[in-house]
Amino acid sequence: MTTANPENDFNNSPLRGLGGAPAVGTEIKVFAPATVANVVCGFDVLGFAVNEPGDEVIMRVTDKAGITISKITGDNGRLPLAAEKNTVSVSVQHYLESIGRTDIGLDIELHKKMPIGSGLGSSSASTVAGLFAIKSLLGDDTDVAKLLPFAMKGEEMACGHGHADNVAPALLGGFVLIRSYEPLDVIRLPHPKDLYCAIVFPDVDVPTREARQIIRDKIYMKDAVTQWGNIAGLVSGLYTQDIDLIGRSMKDVLVEPVRSMLIPDFYVMRELAMKAGAVSFGISGSGPSVFAFTRDEETARNITQMLQSHLADIKIASNAYVSTINDAGPRVL
Amino acid sequence: MTTANPENDFNNSPLRGLGGAPAVGTEIKVFAPATVANVVCGFDVLGFAVNEPGDEVIMRVTDKAGITISKITGDNGRLPLAAEKNTVSVSVQHYLESIGRTDIGLDIELHKKMPIGSGLGSSSASTVAGLFAIKSLLGDDTDVAKLLPFAMKGEEMACGHGHADNVAPALLGGFVLIRSYEPLDVIRLPHPKDLYCAIVFPDVDVPTREARQIIRDKIYMKDAVTQWGNIAGLVSGLYTQDIDLIGRSMKDVLVEPVRSMLIPDFYVMRELAMKAGAVSFGISGSGPSVFAFTRDEETARNITQMLQSHLADIKIASNAYVSTINDAGPRVL
Repeated sequence: MTTANPENDFNNSPLRGLGGAPAVGTEIKVFAPATVANVVCGFDVLGFAVNEPGDEVIMRVTDKAGITISKITGDNGRLPLAAEKNTVSVSVQHYLESIGRTDIGLDIELHKKMPIGSGLGSSSASTVAGLFAIKSLLGDDTDVAKLLPFAMKGEEMACGHGHADNVAPALLGGFVLIRSYEPLDVIRLPHPKDLYCAIVFPDVDVPTREARQIIRDKIYMKDAVTQWGNIAGLVSGLYTQDIDLIGRSMKDVLVEPVRSMLIPDFYVMRELAMKAGAVSFGISGSGPSVFAFTRDEETARNITQMLQSHLADIKIASNAYVSTINDAGPRVL
Repeated sequence: MTTANPENDFNNSPLRGLGGAPAVGTEIKVFAPATVANVVCGFDVLGFAVNEPGDEVIMRVTDKAGITISKITGDNGRLPLAAEKNTVSVSVQHYLESIGRTDIGLDIELHKKMPIGSGLGSSSASTVAGLFAIKSLLGDDTDVAKLLPFAMKGEEMACGHGHADNVAPALLGGFVLIRSYEPLDVIRLPHPKDLYCAIVFPDVDVPTREARQIIRDKIYMKDAVTQWGNIAGLVSGLYTQDIDLIGRSMKDVLVEPVRSMLIPDFYVMRELAMKAGAVSFGISGSGPSVFAFTRDEETARNITQMLQSHLADIKIASNAYVSTINDAGPRVL
């Protein structure tokens, strides 16, 4: 993987700051954010990070080379403790190999603070937390963007595709465009500061692999033209902080009509959200989580309450989160 | 046609400044610019105006209600003098009807200063010049953007589609995104001031209708994703004045591979231009004109010379133009 973007040059300069090994017993706790990929009209190329929810990783230096996972919470037993099967440890292992430090011993605790299979970049958040933890433990002061290829390795393992539209915003924070994969070219986009995000996760099962498979391979050119007019409008609205333009650009004529079938009462929820003052409404990643942009926190909270109430009426449990866009990415707690 | 964009609200406020009728004999001369539509990765939604070439319209107030065309130059006899068949007079007629001023008499001279069927928005430039002339004659001081629906009527007559990717930049100047047609939503994009455009027209026949018909109706989703990653990158580069990003985003995996077949030695010309320092290279509109962005005028002139020399070698006549992006749109001469 090479890149033509000097600011995101993941390969050409070495990782730095790797002189000393951290003392055995040294411990660090890291948070990494959930992310909303696709952002309605940016299928596979856009994503943004939120402040809530997110995952936490506690990483300890041990005296025995290699990585162990001693504890995972919040996953209802769904994630593997075996280090060679867990996306967090696999990504960290790739990173250690790339810097020639497989001599280091690490133990990892993973605390899932968001539902798995929710369409909120659950595996990406865990992976990014793990990578940021080892980078911080080693005092590696290179640009955090250099961790992206390692995070993508974890994503490939988690969902069968090395997509970056969750890991890139989880790692870099903010709103991110993946312009190209070959070469990898990641662009940070600005956004209005007063944009709130209301997220509701209806607790139904929509595995990422299956959600991808129902998308058509072939599409009409005229629909693609509609879609790229809209993504160009969305990017323009992000630069000019034009929330109206952002809202009217967030339309998806290609993926949403198919994926929405997997989400209970998607169009009812959309109507509720838009009537309550949402700027836009759509599927987060491959779903089933949905999200709305709003101009203020109160509207976002009203929307999550209405949607959760509606889901409860149709006997579906849900979680809800209200957040601004997270510009910081992962952080040491 | 309605719009959700208050800045481009073409219908909701009346055209103004129509109190007095101009005196018989009053004359105005207007220039309107050529335009490059599609801009490689923005098929049907992007376009920009250049300073050179452009068309000129001379409009005179006569004493007999109705529109006549007394002279057309530079068209090799290809354009109709009959007012009901000429895009310029038809657009002006639509405008006069919309403001209830069909009592006015007008004579039009059209001076084509660019080749017809060149992919440089020839009909759009003429139409915009005509509309700007009547607006100026009448002292109509509404936003020039309100002329867009009338210009699109002319475009519909000229090439069978009411596209706006030539007329909008010809009318508004600069770099323009047509986010949506229904409702019409036109966004002006910024651009680096030091971006030069080298245009070469190889004198071969590529009618717009035929150039549209060879484009496939159905495309692969993965190619569409590549395309909208690139248009998002291009828009981002325009806002951040990042000429490298503009260059690497200007790739077209969908339309160019098909339309380039209609252009003599397209890939040879691209290689020549890129080796000579072009930022990007592609087809202007539906071709056969090609264009390159460069960082300076000298490189642009070198490229036009090399391409014209190559075309001469293969016995094809050509015209060439070097220009910055025209931000003013039409102007009274």
